[in-house]
Amino acid sequence: MTAPTNPNENFHLIDFADVSVEWWHELYASCQDILARPDDYRDACRGKLLASLFFEASTRTRFSFQAAMLRLGGNLFGFSNPADTSLAKGESLADTIRMTSSYSDTIVMRTTQEGAALAASLYSEVPVINAGDGGHLHPTQTLTDLTTIAQVRGTVGGITVGLCGDLKYGRTVHSLVTALAKFPSVRFVLIAPNALQMPEYMLAFMRANLIDFTVAQSLSDAIDELDVLYMTRIQRERFNSEDVDFDALMTNFTLTAAIMERAKTELTVLHPLPRTNEIDRAVDFDARARYFDQAKLGMYIRMALLLKLTHRPRGVAYPTNEGPGLACSNPRCVTATEKYLPPRLKSDGSCGYCDK
Amino acid sequence: MTAPTNPNENFHLIDFADVSVEWWHELYASCQDILARPDDYRDACRGKLLASLFFEASTRTRFSFQAAMLRLGGNLFGFSNPADTSLAKGESLADTIRMTSSYSDTIVMRTTQEGAALAASLYSEVPVINAGDGGHLHPTQTLTDLTTIAQVRGTVGGITVGLCGDLKYGRTVHSLVTALAKFPSVRFVLIAPNALQMPEYMLAFMRANLIDFTVAQSLSDAIDELDVLYMTRIQRERFNSEDVDFDALMTNFTLTAAIMERAKTELTVLHPLPRTNEIDRAVDFDARARYFDQAKLGMYIRMALLLKLTHRPRGVAYPTNEGPGLACSNPRCVTATEKYLPPRLKSDGSCGYCDK
Amino acid sequence: MTAPTNPNENFHLIDFADVSVEWWHELYASCQDILARPDDYRDACRGKLLASLFFEASTRTRFSFQAAMLRLGGNLFGFSNPADTSLAKGESLADTIRMTSSYSDTIVMRTTQEGAALAASLYSEVPVINAGDGGHLHPTQTLTDLTTIAQVRGTVGGITVGLCGDLKYGRTVHSLVTALAKFPSVRFVLIAPNALQMPEYMLAFMRANLIDFTVAQSLSDAIDELDVLYMTRIQRERFNSEDVDFDALMTNFTLTAAIMERAKTELTVLHPLPRTNEIDRAVDFDARARYFDQAKLGMYIRMALLLKLTHRPRGVAYPTNEGPGLACSNPRCVTATEKYLPPRLKSDGSCGYCDK
Repeated sequence: MTAPTNPNENFHLIDFADVSVEWWHELYASCQDILARPDDYRDACRGKLLASLFFEASTRTRFSFQAAMLRLGGNLFGFSNPADTSLAKGESLADTIRMTSSYSDTIVMRTTQEGAALAASLYSEVPVINAGDGGHLHPTQTLTDLTTIAQVRGTVGGITVGLCGDLKYGRTVHSLVTALAKFPSVRFVLIAPNALQMPEYMLAFMRANLIDFTVAQSLSDAIDELDVLYMTRIQRERFNSEDVDFDALMTNFTLTAAIMERAKTELTVLHPLPRTNEIDRAVDFDARARYFDQAKLGMYIRMALLLKLTHRPRGVAYPTNEGPGLACSNPRCVTATEKYLPPRLKSDGSCGYCDK
Repeated sequence: MTAPTNPNENFHLIDFADVSVEWWHELYASCQDILARPDDYRDACRGKLLASLFFEASTRTRFSFQAAMLRLGGNLFGFSNPADTSLAKGESLADTIRMTSSYSDTIVMRTTQEGAALAASLYSEVPVINAGDGGHLHPTQTLTDLTTIAQVRGTVGGITVGLCGDLKYGRTVHSLVTALAKFPSVRFVLIAPNALQMPEYMLAFMRANLIDFTVAQSLSDAIDELDVLYMTRIQRERFNSEDVDFDALMTNFTLTAAIMERAKTELTVLHPLPRTNEIDRAVDFDARARYFDQAKLGMYIRMALLLKLTHRPRGVAYPTNEGPGLACSNPRCVTATEKYLPPRLKSDGSCGYCDK
Repeated sequence: MTAPTNPNENFHLIDFADVSVEWWHELYASCQDILARPDDYRDACRGKLLASLFFEASTRTRFSFQAAMLRLGGNLFGFSNPADTSLAKGESLADTIRMTSSYSDTIVMRTTQEGAALAASLYSEVPVINAGDGGHLHPTQTLTDLTTIAQVRGTVGGITVGLCGDLKYGRTVHSLVTALAKFPSVRFVLIAPNALQMPEYMLAFMRANLIDFTVAQSLSDAIDELDVLYMTRIQRERFNSEDVDFDALMTNFTLTAAIMERAKTELTVLHPLPRTNEIDRAVDFDARARYFDQAKLGMYIRMALLLKLTHRPRGVAYPTNEGPGLACSNPRCVTATEKYLPPRLKSDGSCGYCDK
């Protein structure tokens, strides 16, 4: 286990793509220690404060972070709904973050704007954790997913992973693919309606990283070859009700007890939750269904993350090159409203905030 | 003081009818000890987490639980308004509870749906406390009421209790009657407008339990015979403004200093609060008015309750008999939306969730 | 450093005008000690509870109090949005406060009603801190402002203070003038559009206290003589868009890097935040801009305040002279809705709650 070469490299957690496999192994080892002796960590974050900024309502992720911080003996402040704040007064994200970071030891934030956590990190003295920035990234969900796979199977690599549901808009799916690309011998089966298949840039990513994948038209077709099945929610609103018989379509992407009968005995079924009807309730009683364990393990890996980040010395984060860069064409990009942000372009010409 | 015969019997607190007088005496003794030496309990729940799920807004009950948990050195997470959550995404109550219970040591919940706390308890690894399920039950208010009577009078039995106000819809009143039925020699005077008198099933309950009660048309008529007067709020919306002169009606059910002059010197006036106009503000300065003490004692008995429940070993609660039973006709019953719930019918044919 | 002559005099903090310079010096000394050795205060409020009642949404002040209380090892409960409470049920402020004070060790509250914190203090067993009552007072912002001036300059007196922006409605500006009047040799330059100049009663206050002030038409005119520049936000809604070219007007009251070039090298720029466009972002990188330090110092002086107030023995606060006094003509005064409040008239005939 080696330390990151650049000590500031992992100050924040914005994108799982930024971290190394070594970083993950270290974090997972810490998580296992917490699971083994939780009482020994009861005061591990005593005196530390987490700022919990949920610009978009969330139950699961927010609860998970709150419980994690409190179980470490730390505490938190923040908001769970932007309506409870004075942000409507027109304050910039940069100012909100400067203020919040001066009161706290770590910031966790969820936004509807893509790239907002990265933008925030430029103005924060303390680590910023991205708890979901629109449809873009959700790295702590990915930590949760990897932790569950590692706990259940003993290791992460060498698996065939079925991704089922909304692969087009599902940020958890994109983050997971990016993360699993770091592990050996992972192949994917993409199980989705045509209209919600994996976007081209993700397919390009898999090809560029020599990751094997196939496409399937239904769960039924793919179930027998899977080691891990990652289910996601399909929203009726994604379809024009006149063109598509949604309920008929869903039968191909709904996990039932009958389909489970044809799955491997060692299958692991995951779901980021909340679940609606895409997993039949009868499956809950199958020992291979691990989505509730997954939710619980999410709290423990977040404990490991908070333990690490809240103890960092404060940084100095004051960008000196403010000013609009090339305008990003994505209307959900953070640069659409926060026009002062320092220009960031990637070498391939995509926006350095939202990756579009 | 004997332990309950079934150790799992009192795992949750859903309905005061489920608990024994012995259970109450034990809890009250604990409360008295906390009142006597609060500093000794400052770390009694250290490391414990309460999930506080208020699906319906509340100030008093929520504050009371929060303050209770924090004064024991525990902590809490949750929401005070369902708008702050992602529940709108269509997650079932069962899934929300499975997730929440995996993060917490006890759950307290308030809902508009009747029977929701019982339903939740079927899916929780940790104790569930019912902090009000619609117009159905509110057992910790009953604990508060009994605690105040016991503190002020030394004992709970042997009293004439006036119940005044909205006896039809008032869940606190129904819970209190059910609870006082467990104590010796309690009689009731039911003081309410005809349209808001005690519902027939509560009258039947009193008759079946050989509890003496009379009906009165005004506070004035009944005041001189009362040992305890339990006031409740009457909502103008309950009446059709064309048919009823609400203000004239209210004079019969409003407690004033003039009426207090004719009351016993040992009267105890209670009110679950919030109070609007049904108790004249001048009564506040009468030493027999104990409703603010009642609010305070509510925090202490909740401390005793949390102390007991948060230390229980986790349970295993996974119903294996899911599936709709006979449809309950009560539109506010939890079974109206949570259709997967295991069937529960009482021997008298009423719904096992909402008692309707 | 002498104790206040009346031990109850400073039980609450409603109006900075109520406290002595000695009280301030004592508090500031405590703040400096906390800044020097924060770890020694980690358990200073252990077991203490702050009730945080934000009847009006706020981010900065609320976060600041929350972080302050948690950094002292205390904890808090409350609401950040009245929609999350049952206050809509028609409960009086007096009853809400009686209940809340019985659960807590100190109350901090923000309201839209003027005089509400004073009204609340009449019904509270524990200290009440005014965190802003409408356009009236905001004493902890004033503590923040004084602390920053004292930290940056070493002392508070002997300065020329420019007040720029909305001097008519800005409660922070009024509180600051009232506070600085207690210190020697402070003079003011009032820099505001005519429509938003300092109200006559504040001008009268300055004249009565022999405080020197001048009026300026733009920042440009005044900048070179200032030791402290206190910027505030001007709201577009204050102007009729047909009559006034708001953007043109704003150029006179916007701080830019060009204007900063002509300022003293020892200038201190303050702003209560949130800031919109009245300070150009380029000024943020000037070392004389201290508004983000100011926000951080606000947390520390609030720690000193909470440390002091949460340890007071409980008071007895039950007004016996309830009943409407002369009706106050200010529709935003707390007496407009809380009609039972004890009459309070000042010797000059103004309302004892809202000062109007």
